Amino acid sequence: MDTLKINKVVIFGIGLIGGSFSLALRKANAVTGVVGFGRSAANMQQALQLGIIDRIGQDIAAEVSDADLILLATPVGQMAELLARIAPHLGAHTLITDGGSTKGDVVRDAYAQLGNKIAQFVPAHPIAGAEQSGAAAAGPDLYAGKKVILTPLPENSPAAVARVRHAWELCGAMVNELTPTQHDEIFAAVSHLPHLLSFALVHDLAQRDNRDLLLSFAASGFRDFTRIAASSPEMWRDICMANRDALLKELQIYIAELNQLSTALAAGDVEKLEQTFHTAQQLRAGWTEK
Amino acid sequence: MDTLKINKVVIFGIGLIGGSFSLALRKANAVTGVVGFGRSAANMQQALQLGIIDRIGQDIAAEVSDADLILLATPVGQMAELLARIAPHLGAHTLITDGGSTKGDVVRDAYAQLGNKIAQFVPAHPIAGAEQSGAAAAGPDLYAGKKVILTPLPENSPAAVARVRHAWELCGAMVNELTPTQHDEIFAAVSHLPHLLSFALVHDLAQRDNRDLLLSFAASGFRDFTRIAASSPEMWRDICMANRDALLKELQIYIAELNQLSTALAAGDVEKLEQTFHTAQQLRAGWTEK
Repeated sequence: MDTLKINKVVIFGIGLIGGSFSLALRKANAVTGVVGFGRSAANMQQALQLGIIDRIGQDIAAEVSDADLILLATPVGQMAELLARIAPHLGAHTLITDGGSTKGDVVRDAYAQLGNKIAQFVPAHPIAGAEQSGAAAAGPDLYAGKKVILTPLPENSPAAVARVRHAWELCGAMVNELTPTQHDEIFAAVSHLPHLLSFALVHDLAQRDNRDLLLSFAASGFRDFTRIAASSPEMWRDICMANRDALLKELQIYIAELNQLSTALAAGDVEKLEQTFHTAQQLRAGWTEK
Repeated sequence: MDTLKINKVVIFGIGLIGGSFSLALRKANAVTGVVGFGRSAANMQQALQLGIIDRIGQDIAAEVSDADLILLATPVGQMAELLARIAPHLGAHTLITDGGSTKGDVVRDAYAQLGNKIAQFVPAHPIAGAEQSGAAAAGPDLYAGKKVILTPLPENSPAAVARVRHAWELCGAMVNELTPTQHDEIFAAVSHLPHLLSFALVHDLAQRDNRDLLLSFAASGFRDFTRIAASSPEMWRDICMANRDALLKELQIYIAELNQLSTALAAGDVEKLEQTFHTAQQLRAGWTEK
């Protein structure tokens, strides 16, 4: 692959993640042919008309046997079944990557389904876009300047990792590497827990008889804090379940933190409150998204 | 007052809240003279140069005896002392309002300090601007279209409430009325608790050896959720302490909510998770700040 073109890419799931991968590779003039598979016939027709894919795949066995690269861009819950269908037909030189937001569960599924072909799977998590909104949402610049995290497996050859890394870099992404466990622990803390907490606050208010009165006085602080509570319930249910060990650990730490603040507040411990707020304020004011 | 001009306004604290009150009344051509008091001589000079006030007050007794309206726009913690200094000299027709973010504590202070002049104090909370950034931050449109909540006292005459309401309306604000207790309960839920939770999450991460690694992978969800953790630690310490009964109650309800989610997650109760997220998502997606 390297500086050469990728001859054939097969993408399962032509939504924001899968469609943008194709468009980005095309923009970089880095791919010869893109074949797409998907559950919705209407979405696949649209992907074809928008020039996102060259052809709608009909026969998984035939299409994956001579592919250079396969991207799994379906919801994480569908990947085990897909891997089972792909595995028997996988070409010897074909590599697989994915776009799942959790990695431990996908890696477990891959070991179970790919068996001795596990070396051909290099897991990835592109940090770009949260909603699966169909082919129409895809664009060639989704990954430009964004992070993509690879979580290589011990079985992967350095050459396989390099080829998958290069494909994501051709999309414009900045590629980092973590282990699957590191990945899931980090995202439990900085993404999955905040989503859970935001959903929990809005759910808490939703239970109340005076919720309309409460919301009528909510302002910009509430607006920002709860923006992520408008995210897809199904997607976040799946992410929370997929990463539940790491998330439970973070949630317990956070509940302990709140219990400490509750004790300080009840005791009128103004120093503890100010110290906590000050430490947070210093860190947050000094942070900018990269 | 009504459609007539306010003859003389005295403002204590010429920052964002106090300075903007003056500029808004001037813009509406609704005030003849504005006298300012403040702790920082430099800030008061700037307020004078910027045309926010007509004169820097020297003698509280003299200035408040013939004022039509007094605005307390200092930090809430300074109001008790100010009220004590104002009380003996208050003119018979003079009304007082304030700009504090909590009301129960200010009202308690007012009863204690004003005694039988309590009817002259009509408490207010303008929902506009969170930072006290000095005279230079003030502007005539800060209150335009924003909510101001009055929490009238049983001792206030309807005419006194109407006059204070009118002054805030002249600033462009939309005025609501609540009791001080209602006010503090509502803001504990939609403002004070979210701030505490956001500070707590960032503080939790700040304790860790790998905080830089964690923050390097934080993205837009984290950014929005924690924006309010960059707020002033001193101001939020004071707000939390001033409203601690209502805030503690909200915090306990929220911790109970998190414990329920933790149990559901540990049990793999996907329906409970999805139902919780769905209820939140429906409410949040349907809400817009007014």
